Amino acid sequence: MDTLGKTITCRAAIAWKRNSPLSIEEVQLEPPKAGEVRIKMTSSAICGSDNHILKGSLPGNFPLIPGHEGAGIVESTGEGVSSVKPGDKVLTLVVPQCRECNSCLAPKGNFCEKQDILPSSGLMLDGTSRFTCKGQEIYQAFRTSTFAEYTVVPEIAVAKIDDAAPMDKVCLLSCGMPAGYGAAVHSAKVTPGSTCVVFGLGGIGSAVVMACKASGASRIIGVDINEEKFPRARVLGVTDCLNPWKLKEPVQQVVVEMTGFGVDFAFEAIGLVETVVYCCLESCHLSYGICQIIGLAPSNSQLSLEALMVVSGRTLKGVCLGGYKTRDCIPQLVTDYLQNKINLDPLITHQLPFDQLHKAFKLYHAGKR
Amino acid sequence: MDTLGKTITCRAAIAWKRNSPLSIEEVQLEPPKAGEVRIKMTSSAICGSDNHILKGSLPGNFPLIPGHEGAGIVESTGEGVSSVKPGDKVLTLVVPQCRECNSCLAPKGNFCEKQDILPSSGLMLDGTSRFTCKGQEIYQAFRTSTFAEYTVVPEIAVAKIDDAAPMDKVCLLSCGMPAGYGAAVHSAKVTPGSTCVVFGLGGIGSAVVMACKASGASRIIGVDINEEKFPRARVLGVTDCLNPWKLKEPVQQVVVEMTGFGVDFAFEAIGLVETVVYCCLESCHLSYGICQIIGLAPSNSQLSLEALMVVSGRTLKGVCLGGYKTRDCIPQLVTDYLQNKINLDPLITHQLPFDQLHKAFKLYHAGKR
Repeated sequence: MDTLGKTITCRAAIAWKRNSPLSIEEVQLEPPKAGEVRIKMTSSAICGSDNHILKGSLPGNFPLIPGHEGAGIVESTGEGVSSVKPGDKVLTLVVPQCRECNSCLAPKGNFCEKQDILPSSGLMLDGTSRFTCKGQEIYQAFRTSTFAEYTVVPEIAVAKIDDAAPMDKVCLLSCGMPAGYGAAVHSAKVTPGSTCVVFGLGGIGSAVVMACKASGASRIIGVDINEEKFPRARVLGVTDCLNPWKLKEPVQQVVVEMTGFGVDFAFEAIGLVETVVYCCLESCHLSYGICQIIGLAPSNSQLSLEALMVVSGRTLKGVCLGGYKTRDCIPQLVTDYLQNKINLDPLITHQLPFDQLHKAFKLYHAGKR
Repeated sequence: MDTLGKTITCRAAIAWKRNSPLSIEEVQLEPPKAGEVRIKMTSSAICGSDNHILKGSLPGNFPLIPGHEGAGIVESTGEGVSSVKPGDKVLTLVVPQCRECNSCLAPKGNFCEKQDILPSSGLMLDGTSRFTCKGQEIYQAFRTSTFAEYTVVPEIAVAKIDDAAPMDKVCLLSCGMPAGYGAAVHSAKVTPGSTCVVFGLGGIGSAVVMACKASGASRIIGVDINEEKFPRARVLGVTDCLNPWKLKEPVQQVVVEMTGFGVDFAFEAIGLVETVVYCCLESCHLSYGICQIIGLAPSNSQLSLEALMVVSGRTLKGVCLGGYKTRDCIPQLVTDYLQNKINLDPLITHQLPFDQLHKAFKLYHAGKR
């Protein structure tokens, strides 16, 4: 605890500007201020939104330290922090839960007004950053910045989890896994015996498949242009795998023909507006199909759809982090994992040390996820 | 019954081509074929979709006889018709219920696959019309053509109603009233204590207001550019009336400010995609707001919205005729009206004889509805 109250010098991955490669640098991290928590990061996963902010398709301020899907151990806490203490195992939360705003107090929804995603200021709630590098202030993407050996996060974006949790696995419960799982069980509310299609079979799509299976869907069609994803998808519950590039007809037409009338539930887990409009929505039953958007499309991208696509009864829904009230619900998911109620292992494709983050991004871009 | 099995000569309103004025003509109407019902029309209302098809903003074949919101008495039935008999009071249904297709058999939704709206062929299920005028075949808009003294409709588009029903009132239960009422109670599922905004305070918007009130909404904001609609809206349950043309800020911004965070439920009862995207969706709470489209936008019109408008948790839903399984549910609404459980009287602005249909359309276009 000799770091208590002191600035910590550690390593962090910095994007000096938009679209630049990440550079692992020595940074200085101030102690947490009131209502903040300083965390020694043990594991972090790569999520599509990290890539979006690095590419500029989600607005962010540079230079920044990306990363939000993280697990770590509390090093110290700022004044007034009561929900965690040094030594606690925690997950960082890209969607915080302040428990005070209208979103948090409402029974439905979870998009806390203190979020820092749309757009990301990259600054703590007091408007400053805790990181500097070579004397320059560095922005904290989504107020999480988990691609660092230590980080500071607002208490409202920290979930205390079970001491027995294996950190290299449960870091996936910080964002990706619940984003997909909750989209199916909370938002779309997949019903027993229903038909589903999942566009994109990466980490989030796989979590959707697991949730559809757990909800008793009778048919789960998985769609991806990368057929390397198909074996895992089948293990998780996909009944039919489709590669759109190998089909003679548009994939949505094939899905409608396979199901006779279109599916009950269609999930977009890629983050492409074209997939939402042309594939996902048209795959849905025109009278009652639910088109669930999970993938975060680039900022300013337009969903342009024929009005008549929805007037017959279709629903288009968005959801962020599965609709979970994060601090209330994420710890329970960790416990569910420890009790073998949910499985994370198939979602873990590679594990690499921090200094090989470049390689991890290469694997991400190569679709090895 | 001297018309039984014979061609009937009667009057009907024909649009000879798109955008032409309606012409009241003498027409010949064949007897009903198998599975069809010939009806002596007693009352018919004007719905926005009639105007859409006349203007060409919904595709239709010309010459055609419009009208779908009608009440009448069965004159005769074709072979195999079992649900109605001559003398029965009935309503015509723009959304049929065949009770055989996937939409009809599903517990949710009502968009029967045998519908003739999107697009309207204007022909009976066997691909022919029963109407001729001066020897020329005339198309039957939506397979209903209620702007006539007699019409032929498929049995699946006919609802038998209570003998005590006043036809000049319950014709509104054929489409407009349930379209608005059901959108709020069935599709959006307005909850007690919720906040709502209704864009458009015509017949459908008024029905939405009544449903929001009946569902226990605590605040119902009504929006219209025609302030003549406000007194009725207030009587029906609107708590705050807004005229967007008199506001200094965009109406959606005013709605968000009035409610603090945006409403729980926003209804588009006009049929303009711009209202859906800019007003209705943005008026909704970003975390859990439901944007319900009721107004039928012109065919080919595009809903173009920022993807990020929905990813935070908003829902965009369409619904047709309130989501009611029409033959099952509409008769009950008539009974509910007779038992004073729902009120139609405030929705009736004018009553005119058939030969003053032109005047009725003039009133419609002048916003007297």
